[in-house]
Amino acid sequence: VLKQIGVVRKDEAGVRLELEKRYQPLFLGLERYSHLNVLWWCSGNDSEEARAVTMVHPNHNLELPLQGVFATRSPMRPNPIALTNARIEKLDAENCVIWLDKLDARDGSPVVDVKPYVPRLDSINAAVAPTWPERTEKLRS
Amino acid sequence: VLKQIGVVRKDEAGVRLELEKRYQPLFLGLERYSHLNVLWWCSGNDSEEARAVTMVHPNHNLELPLQGVFATRSPMRPNPIALTNARIEKLDAENCVIWLDKLDARDGSPVVDVKPYVPRLDSINAAVAPTWPERTEKLRS
Repeated sequence: VLKQIGVVRKDEAGVRLELEKRYQPLFLGLERYSHLNVLWWCSGNDSEEARAVTMVHPNHNLELPLQGVFATRSPMRPNPIALTNARIEKLDAENCVIWLDKLDARDGSPVVDVKPYVPRLDSINAAVAPTWPERTEKLRS
Repeated sequence: VLKQIGVVRKDEAGVRLELEKRYQPLFLGLERYSHLNVLWWCSGNDSEEARAVTMVHPNHNLELPLQGVFATRSPMRPNPIALTNARIEKLDAENCVIWLDKLDARDGSPVVDVKPYVPRLDSINAAVAPTWPERTEKLRS
């Protein structure tokens, strides 16, 4: 069983994670990192129907071939957990708030974990992936 | 609520994810990626006590200062979900088995998600992190 540890907030002030106050001691040392891995719950896709989806078009682009959801980052998957990294803009450990440069989550999305981004572990330049046309490129054309 | 989609297997044959057969259609297109992000459940640390731990010594090295668990990758955290990337050694989509080069999970650990590793999204060379002495270095000295 997964528990919500905080919430994503997005408004004109910026993007931030507001974690529960009782987690304040867990922040010690986070100031030494520049980036985070954020695990959040795609609550908008938490339905039996969305969890049962097997294939999607990459970037919602209908001209691209259907792909199995394990080959995509689609929020429609058996467990709608999203993984996004972000740069820490400001760490307000006292109030359990982490300001980020960006996050592809909606305002109100539950946060389930925050892990430091460690380049030695997380950064793999040589990894191979298909280069789908971006959704924005599609919209622009 | 998180559901188990498969299991980590580790033996003399190697390291692999054995996912449930019903997820076979979700594999389509995964052959175009070289690496995965694996989300797995640290079932060995799923207790109220382990979830309540607030600080740990990095790499189990008692000589290093205590760090809040949000500043570590320790499996002792409010939600014991681990994130590990790995290289796909062999993709056996027909049998829903993914052979990996490595995974820091115990045999039998539940798998909760498999996402393709996308360098454009996941690789941040410029990220800053403290360089703790490795556990192996400690043991060697």
